Amino acid sequence: MDIAEFRRRGREMVDFVADYYENIEKRPVFPDVEPGYLRSLIPSEAPVDPETYEDIMKDVERVIMPGVTHWQSPNFFAYFPANSSLPALLADMLSGAIGCIGFTWAASPACTELETVMLDWLGKMLQLPECFLAGTDGQGGGVIQGTASEATLMSLLAARCKTVRRVQASNSQLLEGEIFSKMMAYTSEEAHSSVERAAQIAGVMIRKVPTDDTYAVRGEMLKKMVEMDKAAGLIPFYFCATLGTTPSCAFDHITELGPICNDENMWMHVDAAYAGSAFVCPEFRHLLNGIEYANSFDFNPHKWLLVNFDCSAMWVKNRADLIGAFKVDPLYLKHENQESGLVTDYRHWQIPLGRRFRSLKMWFVFRLYGHKGLQSHIRHHVTLAKEFESLVRADKRFEICAEVILGLVCFRLKGEDVLSENLLKKINQKREIHLVPCQLSGRFVLRFAVCSRTTESHHIQKAWQHITQLTFEVLQVSNY
Amino acid sequence: MDIAEFRRRGREMVDFVADYYENIEKRPVFPDVEPGYLRSLIPSEAPVDPETYEDIMKDVERVIMPGVTHWQSPNFFAYFPANSSLPALLADMLSGAIGCIGFTWAASPACTELETVMLDWLGKMLQLPECFLAGTDGQGGGVIQGTASEATLMSLLAARCKTVRRVQASNSQLLEGEIFSKMMAYTSEEAHSSVERAAQIAGVMIRKVPTDDTYAVRGEMLKKMVEMDKAAGLIPFYFCATLGTTPSCAFDHITELGPICNDENMWMHVDAAYAGSAFVCPEFRHLLNGIEYANSFDFNPHKWLLVNFDCSAMWVKNRADLIGAFKVDPLYLKHENQESGLVTDYRHWQIPLGRRFRSLKMWFVFRLYGHKGLQSHIRHHVTLAKEFESLVRADKRFEICAEVILGLVCFRLKGEDVLSENLLKKINQKREIHLVPCQLSGRFVLRFAVCSRTTESHHIQKAWQHITQLTFEVLQVSNY
Repeated sequence: MDIAEFRRRGREMVDFVADYYENIEKRPVFPDVEPGYLRSLIPSEAPVDPETYEDIMKDVERVIMPGVTHWQSPNFFAYFPANSSLPALLADMLSGAIGCIGFTWAASPACTELETVMLDWLGKMLQLPECFLAGTDGQGGGVIQGTASEATLMSLLAARCKTVRRVQASNSQLLEGEIFSKMMAYTSEEAHSSVERAAQIAGVMIRKVPTDDTYAVRGEMLKKMVEMDKAAGLIPFYFCATLGTTPSCAFDHITELGPICNDENMWMHVDAAYAGSAFVCPEFRHLLNGIEYANSFDFNPHKWLLVNFDCSAMWVKNRADLIGAFKVDPLYLKHENQESGLVTDYRHWQIPLGRRFRSLKMWFVFRLYGHKGLQSHIRHHVTLAKEFESLVRADKRFEICAEVILGLVCFRLKGEDVLSENLLKKINQKREIHLVPCQLSGRFVLRFAVCSRTTESHHIQKAWQHITQLTFEVLQVSNY
Repeated sequence: MDIAEFRRRGREMVDFVADYYENIEKRPVFPDVEPGYLRSLIPSEAPVDPETYEDIMKDVERVIMPGVTHWQSPNFFAYFPANSSLPALLADMLSGAIGCIGFTWAASPACTELETVMLDWLGKMLQLPECFLAGTDGQGGGVIQGTASEATLMSLLAARCKTVRRVQASNSQLLEGEIFSKMMAYTSEEAHSSVERAAQIAGVMIRKVPTDDTYAVRGEMLKKMVEMDKAAGLIPFYFCATLGTTPSCAFDHITELGPICNDENMWMHVDAAYAGSAFVCPEFRHLLNGIEYANSFDFNPHKWLLVNFDCSAMWVKNRADLIGAFKVDPLYLKHENQESGLVTDYRHWQIPLGRRFRSLKMWFVFRLYGHKGLQSHIRHHVTLAKEFESLVRADKRFEICAEVILGLVCFRLKGEDVLSENLLKKINQKREIHLVPCQLSGRFVLRFAVCSRTTESHHIQKAWQHITQLTFEVLQVSNY
């Protein structure tokens, strides 16, 4: 393919993408394929000679599309949003073309510097405390991680390193391994599975803190566990708070938890993967109160802030904690400006070495939407969730299972779990809308998350109509 | 931005990208900016109201381009390639538009299944042993990781888990922490810094194995260290072999090392991040001999196989080792087909949870180039490296510092390091070409890597002319 053909094919692809979005509602949101469906549709080996572009694009419809779960469809209400936006798509084209790998400042200064400034912009939109911003001479700063899981892992590793150094400073005979085996991390029983995984990777123990009846961790619950563990000779060192849990969008009480962590020399990481985007609105900013106690904070603009996956925004109060955890400096990565305080080498901030020019899509999105545009997007989704909540509340067969604070509604059919299980099965078999379940207080619950950028009130109404119709079928069968 | 505007802006962006590639040689390959240059060029906060698209595109030239290191320029000879290609760019547009997050099979079946089959296609092009392929009922299989660093980490974590289980099976009283503190990993002293970092993350010790005079690890060197460590009561459990080291593209002797690892119950991971792409050519395939002894293998199609970053291809012989290392299964990620042998949930294979639809770009590239096209690309680069090598060898002031096997030439000015250091400084100050250094046998060495998809013989000739001219200046000064 030469440049001339790229111009032609590129235009065709732009139209393909535009057509995809214009007609996405005509596609079943959830695919009707069996495991292994794809292998039989394509050859078992790569072609020896080049094929034609036309054949490939035909196969996109024949092979790919039938197996796609359409996350961008307004009928997609599963998991959490993964908002794509048109400005982000354009920025990604540019990023792909430049194709730089920004592991050090010198490897592409623009890639590093735009990222630092974009994280400052975003931090200001969230009214993050000044200490989390890089500015020109801050101790803190932000970085784009691939996912919230990686941010959690990085924060836990930094905390591990800091703790080992502190313990060894007062008892220099202790080996790292001995300290590890006494270190205890904590997180909510409602926290994302990646927190437990991060502790497994780091080789430290983790305890799940019970939540109150709103599925949130309170200070006293953590305090009790920490006291108990200290009495048993363990070293509490890390707490991952969640703002907006995955099952029910519950908010741990970080105004209570933060002071405990600070007093106990425990690193507090705040994971607001989904909910964080809402903090660009002043009316939701109070949910972030207490962030001043945290050592690190992360949320995913790729979930709800219109910046395509992957873009997880992480801030630390003290960048030296993160960088110091594993600095390894071979000559082929050294460069002249390395020692300057102005220079950031993001490779020390993350698990991978390489990194794409992801801040471009933040820059395009923030400028083309403006702070106000981002706020409208969040408010619109919250309004739609409230609309759905009202519909559920008006129907006596259903119950709401957790307070609806942002864009997620947890609900179930009153009675045995099997009713809600059957309802969900029917919903996903029909493929008109797509939901996933969760478990709350041991009960099977349906999660209805407003996801797509293009979801409107009529989609909510239609979804509810569809759900009630299937409910009729479920209850009818159960009455036999 | 509505769909109609996206069609227009998308076309403009396609042209912008095409123009960028057509004129990339007119730009200095390495930017002339000081640390902190960018912050002063843009506002300190995000705009409240939307800005115009025209303003943003103007800023791409004003703010971004002056700070870009142009990795796709044919005058870029630094690090290793990060080949972008036009078919991959088109596939990425499609991937971004679909915007699915393929963490489980159900989250988007096409995303998972195409990946499995593409890794089989690629494995077959490399003539990987059958046991690494997924097929319809294989124990092994491939996965796209973000970077080789993540593949190394995943393999080390899987090895750690397997070893702990084995040790605990024969001594059930040992705690995990106690076992960790006896576990020893090994890698070449020439290995990439990410291997050391993986051991740090996992909390295990690592030893660097000395290399022979070709910078390769031999069996006897590893064997000696393993014996010594075993005698000291340690548990050797992991060896990361490198095929194509970063400093000099040296190849560890895995035909010797593999049997040792197998005998000692050590996991052998083979990291061929750069060199792996060359194995699509039969004449280079012998460099992969011994892979049958490995537990896992990884290389980066995003380096040298025309698939845009990120795309690191990893295979394991026994997928259960990888998956078993940290399976965490919350209800919101469960789905109906989970227990089927046909279904792969790639979230268990990697550090992050979320993942993009990256196999699309493999599919586009493999089909639009064909196996033959990929081979031509590799062969062309190797020929160019040989051409550069001849030029260096013909000039008595220089010496070649390592055998030129693929696309990397290591060379230096004979004599004191300061000469080569000054030469490199001059080269990078002139910004006509870009190189980075390495250290070999304690000496400062220049690395000349053929990187860009569009590098031709005349670029090599011009680069050499440029280098010799600067050499003249360096030697003249040093004679005063």
